[in-house]
Amino acid sequence: MKNDTPGMKMTYAASGVDIDAATQAKQRIRGLARTTFTPGVLTDIGSFGALFRLEPGRYAEPLLVSSCDGVGTKLKVAFMTGIHDTVGYDLVSHCVSDIMVQGARPLYFLDYVACGRLEPGVVEQVVAGLARGCRETGCALIGGETAEMPDFYAPGEYDLAGFIVGVVDRSRLIDGSRIRPGDTLLGLPSAGLPDRVPELNATVGEVLLAPHRSYYSLLEPLLDSGVLRGMAHITGGGITDNLPRILPGGVGALVRRETWPVTPVFEFIRQHGAVDDAEMYRTFNMGIGMILVVSPEDAGKVEAHLGARGEASHRIGEIVPGDGTVHYV
Amino acid sequence: MKNDTPGMKMTYAASGVDIDAATQAKQRIRGLARTTFTPGVLTDIGSFGALFRLEPGRYAEPLLVSSCDGVGTKLKVAFMTGIHDTVGYDLVSHCVSDIMVQGARPLYFLDYVACGRLEPGVVEQVVAGLARGCRETGCALIGGETAEMPDFYAPGEYDLAGFIVGVVDRSRLIDGSRIRPGDTLLGLPSAGLPDRVPELNATVGEVLLAPHRSYYSLLEPLLDSGVLRGMAHITGGGITDNLPRILPGGVGALVRRETWPVTPVFEFIRQHGAVDDAEMYRTFNMGIGMILVVSPEDAGKVEAHLGARGEASHRIGEIVPGDGTVHYV
Repeated sequence: MKNDTPGMKMTYAASGVDIDAATQAKQRIRGLARTTFTPGVLTDIGSFGALFRLEPGRYAEPLLVSSCDGVGTKLKVAFMTGIHDTVGYDLVSHCVSDIMVQGARPLYFLDYVACGRLEPGVVEQVVAGLARGCRETGCALIGGETAEMPDFYAPGEYDLAGFIVGVVDRSRLIDGSRIRPGDTLLGLPSAGLPDRVPELNATVGEVLLAPHRSYYSLLEPLLDSGVLRGMAHITGGGITDNLPRILPGGVGALVRRETWPVTPVFEFIRQHGAVDDAEMYRTFNMGIGMILVVSPEDAGKVEAHLGARGEASHRIGEIVPGDGTVHYV
Repeated sequence: MKNDTPGMKMTYAASGVDIDAATQAKQRIRGLARTTFTPGVLTDIGSFGALFRLEPGRYAEPLLVSSCDGVGTKLKVAFMTGIHDTVGYDLVSHCVSDIMVQGARPLYFLDYVACGRLEPGVVEQVVAGLARGCRETGCALIGGETAEMPDFYAPGEYDLAGFIVGVVDRSRLIDGSRIRPGDTLLGLPSAGLPDRVPELNATVGEVLLAPHRSYYSLLEPLLDSGVLRGMAHITGGGITDNLPRILPGGVGALVRRETWPVTPVFEFIRQHGAVDDAEMYRTFNMGIGMILVVSPEDAGKVEAHLGARGEASHRIGEIVPGDGTVHYV
């Protein structure tokens, strides 16, 4: 609370929190959010809690699958370039992938935006990106929190996090328990930053902000097929840390590094940064954004599905007897 | 990415993101989170998505009720005092109240903690508070994100947000639609900061960090009774902005200011800050943290329930024909 001029009427706005600017931003946000609404959404933004109706009878044993993520330091690029609509799209794609790997389809999303002082135009861009990501995946943007915290964030900066809820019927859950030695690892190319670096027509900011891939529309048709024994979303921690998250007891993974083209930016870092291979593969995705674990018999079917959609994939290795770790050859 | 010494091996830790410290903190967090687990939790922390099983057959038509909130500027007090376990408790209480006002019981919670550099002891304190709030309300802390973002947050500072999911059967939904002119407004005292200011035995930091009330155990037994026509959680925006969120068309609220003791700190601000009454009531809760809307016939029953639990309540006004706004007399 500040009241710099004794005797003057103090308003909450003068204290550093502008309720009217917040109200305006909320109205813009509501309009954008409404473009994502699905039949399950029962309330408009603005209720204390957001209501979502699970279709009765659709699931024999519904499991809710949830994830929370932030955008991270990539936000700095948005601040520098003034481009704020890709970070939201990115965040939704990331969250959707995190629940899809367990077989879940997204139901709804809530966002958390925190800033020093609300700039309604910026928040609108952020939410526009969130809304686009949500529309593409049939996910409703049903709520969120926009927090003004003076003295927490530098002028023009903000933090952005998101929370997703999806559902999978228990019989369709993909939890890696069917993974067996001999299974094939199919790697899907990552996108975003690394793939774009050689494209010198784009500005550096555009390149750095190139959104993560959304794998959802590509893989969603396979979710109920039974051919996916496991899926691993390769994010921070690389293949080394992420693939073990889905491995059942008694198995490990053998990854053959020469089976896919490492994206040029990672080659550059490896060579010029003198970073050793182990560190590279536990830090970066090295060009693989998603790994599917399938039986050798089903691998061709999945490749055909991907190929029919113009999608490259690589047989990057196989499941072997082991202790839950990844070995590279 | 930084690599200040050309030719030296770079690790991700040297670049400002310490994966090992993050791993240690995650292990502590997992232990605390496990203390909150309920039978619906199917996965441990660490899966890509967190799994929660809705009890089959328990709900005829389950509605998921979700909310997202941050702690806000109160975090600065935690930074100054080094007391980090009340902000998490506070956040859970706040989120639980936001979904309880629609009749929902909490299922699970996910947290987002962002900092410049991870201090495992601090994160552990934060999560200990979250876990305590979750245990008290039967809410499982099933996941979250701990983000290290160098250059975003000042040393020793962090931001904290939370997401809650609860459930209510559609027939038990409390949405304000049964509110009628003549209904009684029962106000429950707020707690936290204002009530504690006169207690001079406590340090200022302890006083400022006194957690929000958790109304859940007090009000949960009433959720299925049918007597609660509406509930409004009075937070930022005061009674003026929050009570209208549950009013159906054609009604307003008349609030009688003399019916409850305004907490001393608000009297102090009003007098010494020269803030007018309208601004005060749309900014602060003025000592009322929760409003229950009940029929005049049921008011006594609810008061008896509260009184039996040692809880004061005040008849602070009534529903009147109107345009969705609050008038004060």
